[in-house]
Amino acid sequence: MKSIGVFDSGVGGLTVVKELIRQLPNENIVYFGDTARVPYGIKSRETVIRFSIENILFLLKQDVKLICVACNTASSFALPVIKNYFRAPIIGVITPGVREAVYASQNKRIGVIGTKGTIKSRTYETEIKQLDPKAKVVTASCPLFVPFVEEGWLSGEVVLSVVKSYLKPLKDAGVDTVILGCTHYPLLKPVIQQVLGKDVVLIDSAKQVACEVKKILASEDLFNRGKGGKNTFYVSDNPEWFSGLAQRFLGSPLRNVKKVNNV
Amino acid sequence: MKSIGVFDSGVGGLTVVKELIRQLPNENIVYFGDTARVPYGIKSRETVIRFSIENILFLLKQDVKLICVACNTASSFALPVIKNYFRAPIIGVITPGVREAVYASQNKRIGVIGTKGTIKSRTYETEIKQLDPKAKVVTASCPLFVPFVEEGWLSGEVVLSVVKSYLKPLKDAGVDTVILGCTHYPLLKPVIQQVLGKDVVLIDSAKQVACEVKKILASEDLFNRGKGGKNTFYVSDNPEWFSGLAQRFLGSPLRNVKKVNNV
Repeated sequence: MKSIGVFDSGVGGLTVVKELIRQLPNENIVYFGDTARVPYGIKSRETVIRFSIENILFLLKQDVKLICVACNTASSFALPVIKNYFRAPIIGVITPGVREAVYASQNKRIGVIGTKGTIKSRTYETEIKQLDPKAKVVTASCPLFVPFVEEGWLSGEVVLSVVKSYLKPLKDAGVDTVILGCTHYPLLKPVIQQVLGKDVVLIDSAKQVACEVKKILASEDLFNRGKGGKNTFYVSDNPEWFSGLAQRFLGSPLRNVKKVNNV
Repeated sequence: MKSIGVFDSGVGGLTVVKELIRQLPNENIVYFGDTARVPYGIKSRETVIRFSIENILFLLKQDVKLICVACNTASSFALPVIKNYFRAPIIGVITPGVREAVYASQNKRIGVIGTKGTIKSRTYETEIKQLDPKAKVVTASCPLFVPFVEEGWLSGEVVLSVVKSYLKPLKDAGVDTVILGCTHYPLLKPVIQQVLGKDVVLIDSAKQVACEVKKILASEDLFNRGKGGKNTFYVSDNPEWFSGLAQRFLGSPLRNVKKVNNV
């Protein structure tokens, strides 16, 4: 029985895994977190493309039927280039989030926050404009958010004041919808919501990504007919660190995380 | 004419290069920053050793006569294991800093701050105790300092309150000397000094490392006899980002940073 392959630069992609397990409980999932080279958000387009190809080749060796790029930076930089390289369908996290945001926004002012790489790539802007040419898009890179989440700094004065400073341009522009364009950011949702106000809709693409995966499995007749999926987790470094953080993202602890060299 | 090889996970090692240029103006320097895999501070011992060996092999191909590991995490994890692997002498940043700290401390209470990896390795503690078994060592990992420096957050309320929180155990223990055990930290010297008080001595190992290099070149008769050294900078990713940050570390801008694959 073939699996759904998921990769991320590290641990953030587990937010997508959580949704896949919820929506597709009978599927097998193989996850790869590139913890030896994490983070991707500060790396160049060229390097992120190279890493993404290496990760996909690793997943293909694990006999996957579909690949989910659960990393916004890799989806932004690599997906436009490599999506037709491989036979297996490849789903990124950008398009599902964009669709949801354009649907949710009333005033057509949409905010996007992400890593430096994601924001620099302008992929979110391009895709939003394709879907709604009249939408106004305001972006902000938030490079301290990933370290905050990985250090467990999810609230408090320090975090609040950094969030305020990063989100000021979005607040000033009066956006009514904000895409959390990094799989780490949902963990900062409470403080982001507090800063933006309760009426601003925050889009966390994990749910939409899982819907998209479901749709493709249906249309290509790839559903697993068995009962009860099996999940396997690989990392390129620090399985203990990954297991520890996994609880925060997945809501339950992880055992048997395997360390591999993907290159 | 053979060069001095210097490597770091990224840009921090330029604080060492600055001192090498000042103290050894006639030497050629080849620098390698592993910006495709930065940071090292959150990676495992095993992975940091693997990366360090790859970086040393790259430098050896550039015809170096001595290698300087200008990264505290690599010096802590890799140096004890690999220092006798290669023919060229290899200098880390730990021992010179330790020597200076033990010399400077009056009350024999010494603080050490660094990345998670550096602190976890306990290399600083071991070396301090070897030199002065009576010294009391208090350590603290400061995982947000590197992102702060790389984002240019060097002062202000947010930085001040994080510095206060990280340094509390050192302050409580009444240390009179603190080793800045990460090549990024000298850029936060003003705020660290403000928090610890003006009487606490901050040890920035770059100067001592350059002295050590000088001593070894002298003892092994390896000085460059020519006039005016040449400096070459290689990175594994993002030469523009590296050039931009270099100004902050080196005090002058860098041109002609070359991108290479070191593996």
